[in-house]
Amino acid sequence: MTSDVTLCECFARDGLQHEPQFVPTATKRALVERFAALGFPRVEATSYSNPKVVPQFADASELLKSIERKPGVFYKATCANVKAVERALADLEAGSGANEISLLVSATESHTRKNLNRTRAEQWRNIADTVAAAGGRFRLVGTISVAFGCPFEGAVDPARVLGFVADLAAAGADEVVLADTVGVGVPRQVKHLVSEAVKLAPRVGVHLHNTRNTGFANAYAALEAGATVLDASVGGLGGCPFAPRATGNISTEDLVYMLHGEGIDTGIDLAALITVAEWLEGQLGRQLPGQVYRAGTFAPVAA
Amino acid sequence: MTSDVTLCECFARDGLQHEPQFVPTATKRALVERFAALGFPRVEATSYSNPKVVPQFADASELLKSIERKPGVFYKATCANVKAVERALADLEAGSGANEISLLVSATESHTRKNLNRTRAEQWRNIADTVAAAGGRFRLVGTISVAFGCPFEGAVDPARVLGFVADLAAAGADEVVLADTVGVGVPRQVKHLVSEAVKLAPRVGVHLHNTRNTGFANAYAALEAGATVLDASVGGLGGCPFAPRATGNISTEDLVYMLHGEGIDTGIDLAALITVAEWLEGQLGRQLPGQVYRAGTFAPVAA
Repeated sequence: MTSDVTLCECFARDGLQHEPQFVPTATKRALVERFAALGFPRVEATSYSNPKVVPQFADASELLKSIERKPGVFYKATCANVKAVERALADLEAGSGANEISLLVSATESHTRKNLNRTRAEQWRNIADTVAAAGGRFRLVGTISVAFGCPFEGAVDPARVLGFVADLAAAGADEVVLADTVGVGVPRQVKHLVSEAVKLAPRVGVHLHNTRNTGFANAYAALEAGATVLDASVGGLGGCPFAPRATGNISTEDLVYMLHGEGIDTGIDLAALITVAEWLEGQLGRQLPGQVYRAGTFAPVAA
Repeated sequence: MTSDVTLCECFARDGLQHEPQFVPTATKRALVERFAALGFPRVEATSYSNPKVVPQFADASELLKSIERKPGVFYKATCANVKAVERALADLEAGSGANEISLLVSATESHTRKNLNRTRAEQWRNIADTVAAAGGRFRLVGTISVAFGCPFEGAVDPARVLGFVADLAAAGADEVVLADTVGVGVPRQVKHLVSEAVKLAPRVGVHLHNTRNTGFANAYAALEAGATVLDASVGGLGGCPFAPRATGNISTEDLVYMLHGEGIDTGIDLAALITVAEWLEGQLGRQLPGQVYRAGTFAPVAA
C-alpha cells in the first residue's frame, strides 16, 4: 500500500455546507489555521457559491483574506462556475486567494440537474469555460459526484465514470476525485474505479461518506488500488441534501487512526485533532458520527 | 475473495449481554427464530453464564428449549467453564440444547484475570477440561479475546495470538475466532493474523467491534485474508464493559449490505433484517449504531 497519501480536511466546506447556523468568519479562520497547524497538507477552506443559495459561504473572500498561510499547504475553494473562478482570481490577484480550486461534474443527468442545475452537456461546457477562466493560476481538482451510485438513477455505469475521469484530465485537471456523494459505494467498486482511474489522470482521490458504514473499508480499498488523496471531515460531519438521514463524510480522526495503524505516516497530530472533534461536539451540542474522539486513541501495533 | 462466508448473528448473546433490562424469554426466542428464518446459518443464542453474574442469561436452558429449530442452523451458546458445558450437555440430552458452543481464552494475562477471573495457565487447563467435558457432542468454537489489543496491556504480540490459535486447534476447536473485543484493530493486523491463522486452524473467523470505525475495513481485510466466519450483531449493539463509551459489534445489516455489494451471496434477507433493526430501535428507545437501517438500502452495482 502506498505511503504517499494526501489528506484533505473538508470540514470548513463540506462539513459546514448544510449547517443552518452561520458560523462566524473568525471561527472558520481559526479552524482552517488549526487544520494546517495539525499537519494537513490540504484544507478545503470555502466555496465561491452564490451567497443567496449557500449563505454559509457568503464570507468566502473575507475568510480567505484573513487566513494566515502555512507554507506548502494548499487551501482549496470550490468553484462551480466561471463567476466563481473570477472571484477566486480577483482574490488571488489581491494576494489572498485559494491556491487550489475544485470543479464539479456529476456522473448522472438527474444529479447534474438537481445539484448543479445544468444538463450534462452544459456541465462539460462549464468545465471548459472554468478551466479557461482559471488560466493555469490554480491547482485544479476535478470532482465527479455520485460516482458510485445516484439517489435518482441508482447504479452508475463505471465506464461512464471512467470516461469522465479521462475528460477531466484532458480538460486540464491536475487531479480527479471520485465522490461517493450519498455513501452507497462498496470496496470492489472503489477498487475497480480507482485502479482504472489512475491510468487516466495524473492523480486520483476519493471523497467518501460513511452513510452505510462502508466508508472506511472503501478508503482502505482506494489506497490499495492506488488513490493518493483522501478527503475527510473532522467529526464525520457533512452530508448531502438528497440523503437527509445520512451520516456525513468519513471522520478525519478515525481515518487518521486507521492510517497510522496501517503504518502510513500522515504527518497529522491525531491527539490534537481529537481535541478539535471534542470542541466541535460542544459547539454543535450533539454527538458527532466520528468514533475515535469518543472511544479514545490506541496503538494497536507495537512500535 | 472467498464467497464461502458464514455469518453468525450475535445479538441474542453479545448484543444483550450488557442490556440492564432483562429481555423476556419469549422475545429472545422470537428473535433467535427470526434470525434463522432470515437466513443466518448460525445464531448465537445465549450463554451458560452464572445467573448471579449475568442475570440476562438466567433463562439459557428455558430459551434453548423453547426455540423451534430450523434444520441446518447452528445455535451457539457460550460456555466459560466445565459447569456451563455440563448444563449444555444436560439440555442436549433432553433434546433441546445448543449444537455449537464457544470456549473463551484471552490473549493477555490482565484481560484473562479481569474477564474470566483466571490466570493464563488456569485458562488453558479450563480449555482442556471443557473440551473433555463436551465429549465431542458439540461443534467447538475457540474464541480469543483482545486478539488485536488489550485495554489493560496495550498492543498484543501477534506471535502469542497465533500460538493460541494453534493451541486451540490442538485442543480440539473446530474453528478459531479472533476477537477485537475493544475495537482497536486495523486492517493490516487483521490481514496478518488471519492469513497466518488459517494455516493453523480448520476454520478461522473474526469477531469485530466498530468502536473506532475500523470494523468494516477489518471485516473486508479478514475476508481477503481467508476468514470464513464473521460475527455481527443487528443494529451494531453489544460491547465490552471495559470500553464503556464504545460502540458495539459491527452491525449485521451494514455488513450484509457490504457483502452483497461485493457480490457475496450471504443468503440473508437484507430488507427483512432492516425491519428487525427498526423494531429494535423502537424497543430500546434509542438510535442504534447501525447505519443502513437509517439510510436505507441501495444496489450500487447493477445486477
